[in-house]
Amino acid sequence: MIGYVIGKILRIEFAFIFIPFLISFFYNETYILKNAYIITMVLIAAVSYVLSMRLPKNTKIYVREGYFIVSLSWILMSIFAAFPFFISGEIPSYIDAFFEVVSGFTTTGASILTNVELLSNSLLFLRSFTHFVGGMGVLVLAIAILPQNNNDSLSIMRAEVPGPVFGKLVSKMAYNSRILYLIYIAIVILIIIFLKIGDMPLFDSILHAFGAAGTGGFAMKNNSVAYYNSAYIEYVLGVGMILCGLNFNLFYWLLLKNFKQVYKNEEMRLYLKIIIISIVLICVNLYPQYKNISRLFRDVFFTVSSIITTTGFSTVDFDKWTTFSKMILLILMFVGGCAGSTAGGVKVSRILILFKSMKGQIKRSEDPNRVTTIKMDGVPINKEVFARVSNYIILLIVISIASVLLVAWDIPDIQSAISAVAATINNIGPGLGAYGPTSNYSSLSGISKIVLSICMLLGRLEIFPILILFSPRLYKKMFNNDDK
Amino acid sequence: MIGYVIGKILRIEFAFIFIPFLISFFYNETYILKNAYIITMVLIAAVSYVLSMRLPKNTKIYVREGYFIVSLSWILMSIFAAFPFFISGEIPSYIDAFFEVVSGFTTTGASILTNVELLSNSLLFLRSFTHFVGGMGVLVLAIAILPQNNNDSLSIMRAEVPGPVFGKLVSKMAYNSRILYLIYIAIVILIIIFLKIGDMPLFDSILHAFGAAGTGGFAMKNNSVAYYNSAYIEYVLGVGMILCGLNFNLFYWLLLKNFKQVYKNEEMRLYLKIIIISIVLICVNLYPQYKNISRLFRDVFFTVSSIITTTGFSTVDFDKWTTFSKMILLILMFVGGCAGSTAGGVKVSRILILFKSMKGQIKRSEDPNRVTTIKMDGVPINKEVFARVSNYIILLIVISIASVLLVAWDIPDIQSAISAVAATINNIGPGLGAYGPTSNYSSLSGISKIVLSICMLLGRLEIFPILILFSPRLYKKMFNNDDK
Repeated sequence: MIGYVIGKILRIEFAFIFIPFLISFFYNETYILKNAYIITMVLIAAVSYVLSMRLPKNTKIYVREGYFIVSLSWILMSIFAAFPFFISGEIPSYIDAFFEVVSGFTTTGASILTNVELLSNSLLFLRSFTHFVGGMGVLVLAIAILPQNNNDSLSIMRAEVPGPVFGKLVSKMAYNSRILYLIYIAIVILIIIFLKIGDMPLFDSILHAFGAAGTGGFAMKNNSVAYYNSAYIEYVLGVGMILCGLNFNLFYWLLLKNFKQVYKNEEMRLYLKIIIISIVLICVNLYPQYKNISRLFRDVFFTVSSIITTTGFSTVDFDKWTTFSKMILLILMFVGGCAGSTAGGVKVSRILILFKSMKGQIKRSEDPNRVTTIKMDGVPINKEVFARVSNYIILLIVISIASVLLVAWDIPDIQSAISAVAATINNIGPGLGAYGPTSNYSSLSGISKIVLSICMLLGRLEIFPILILFSPRLYKKMFNNDDK
Repeated sequence: MIGYVIGKILRIEFAFIFIPFLISFFYNETYILKNAYIITMVLIAAVSYVLSMRLPKNTKIYVREGYFIVSLSWILMSIFAAFPFFISGEIPSYIDAFFEVVSGFTTTGASILTNVELLSNSLLFLRSFTHFVGGMGVLVLAIAILPQNNNDSLSIMRAEVPGPVFGKLVSKMAYNSRILYLIYIAIVILIIIFLKIGDMPLFDSILHAFGAAGTGGFAMKNNSVAYYNSAYIEYVLGVGMILCGLNFNLFYWLLLKNFKQVYKNEEMRLYLKIIIISIVLICVNLYPQYKNISRLFRDVFFTVSSIITTTGFSTVDFDKWTTFSKMILLILMFVGGCAGSTAGGVKVSRILILFKSMKGQIKRSEDPNRVTTIKMDGVPINKEVFARVSNYIILLIVISIASVLLVAWDIPDIQSAISAVAATINNIGPGLGAYGPTSNYSSLSGISKIVLSICMLLGRLEIFPILILFSPRLYKKMFNNDDK
């Protein structure tokens, strides 16, 4: 059954690779590159055929199987999507290509390319297209376009859509994912139109819209968005990123004119508050360094949007900012966007739940007999949810520490090691120190690149689906089932 | 009632100041210094007299009042103990003297002195003596020697003794604290004897025993324990620190020959495991840099003991170690010692509870219907305890971030800012970067010193007692009670 579903997902990837293949004809690119696409597509088709050859008897998918499908298809997708880069020779090392593609699918935006402008247009497209696909999730897309059992889809969506609680919009999952994807595509098109109005070339507009809407952050110029040097473009992208850091359910409610539900959404309100406060604090802190206020606000607005949504576009080298401002950015990196958005990070709703629980604890410490209940959007929150959220954070910390220890062999200073892990596990891309906005991850060793690739996947799929791949219990059970 | 208890505690402090006063005669120190002691003692006596003048009608102490008493007496004790340093002119700035004394009482060991060897002997004694007093807690001492209601004492001990769950040895609290203090004094005497055997002068032995047993880390030489350059002394202190990082209840059980309970103690076992694993990892990592293994093991053993027990003695400049080894030390800084020890940090038992809860969560993520219970030392742990532990960690993180933001205005790089806060809130002393083992906190601004002093108090008293000082609800209630 697992193989069957993954086979189907690979068919979707086949279509993904087909688009840059067409583009390579449009731009009249080399034969080597075209062949690279063809080889990749043949490989995908073959594997997909083998996997979905025999129709499964048992078509039920449980949580465990859902997790397994999600993590395995993300890894397979990345393995295949790295081929065109590697076979064409434009990224000579396969590990580098894999890192780049994982970074794309997980909407991290961390790059190993020292000169991105050397890449062929069709590969640039493929690179940014992974952001678009990974942003909303490839399995959500699969559910939207493939006929599927409703219960099965729920397990898969729960594994792929970020956030602590999964809110369904409508009862039928296929319909649900179709709504999400239509909203998502609409936002991308809107950003493209607005960028085009700002005189950005169409090809650039499409790629930047993918990067902003997927909150990925791959740019097509070496100095990222700073290349265009246009306040208008930066504000369009900034607003676009902030919107895509919101829970997509909000847009659905807006379309239904359910303004009250949108207004009452506590996560959205905290998210916007954090953005405003951060911008104000950094502006005050950096004012002495800047000559004019409009330039200061423009840079800070763009950077804060890019960091809190974990996109990673850059217009200034914020690694040169003051310690205080960098510290605020570091906090934003961990906060991340809202649940149900395309952004990474811990997610605002988790922070909100933790803060509320902490408040309750402080009240109880003053008066132990007090009974406190935690409410979110007016609904009391189960203690189980709180335990899940805090366990998630602890797990995230433990995995981050372990990853830092693994990459520390390779990286000269602690700040850069911590920042590299933070930037990948939170799906941001550029961090601080040696992996800041003006540098890239090319200097790392192969092992560190693989560790960071796993960090990106862990961050994007929120740990549990990936952990299940390492669970011996699961494999034991799978083999036992085969025997029966 | 609160004033009455605090008045009594100040009487104990009077005795504390009297000891260095006597020592100043022994070493024939200046009149200015002797006068400084006299002025301080007169001040303490006056305040103590005013506070405990009228006998309270209501002698009951609730949790809230217990917290209030503990935090207020720690602050008052520090305010007074800073006077001899300030009045004698040996620390010219009062904020510096306050920082130094808070650092002593909280057994942090962070110093603002650029040349500690200039200090008079009696002040050196007072400085290290604060470690001894702060290690086990001044209120535990008060309970041990003053007649007190049993229930009241429980609230106070809960506030002062570190750790998530408070295990009573015997039902009578005064007896309980007497046992703890006797064990504590016995350990100090043992360390003194062992150091004396290693040819350390008696005065130095006493001061280092205070520093090791209180896990404080104030040294009397500029290059800390490295001054003596003796493997024997380093091993004595190392073992002493590790012992004092254990729950003191274990020693009581050992005395009762209850070996099984000691052996089964999960916190102790994890604590020792962490120490062994860290030493092995760092030794393997640093082996290429060192010439001989015995020197390597000696340095690593001492540093790991000093860091995990949050003491802060140093024999090598570990800031020059590799990123990997420094990262291990950074983790140890946060882990800290066992609950019910004199050490700081998050405490091993909290880490243990979080790990167990996390494990349960992973199991549940694979099989949502599974019921998991967390056990510690064979006893199931209440969900409330887990919530308290994770809320504590979250609160610690939030306060640390806020403190980093406050000191970041002052400190040139993020690593040093984070490390300064981590080193003070975990009561370690020297951190990494600009506040590493070879440097000190003298370069900071007054505001940052106060922020870090508060961090030390928050870390030592485990946040909640200090928070209550900032609670408007408490004051409202106190004034309302006065009206009645």
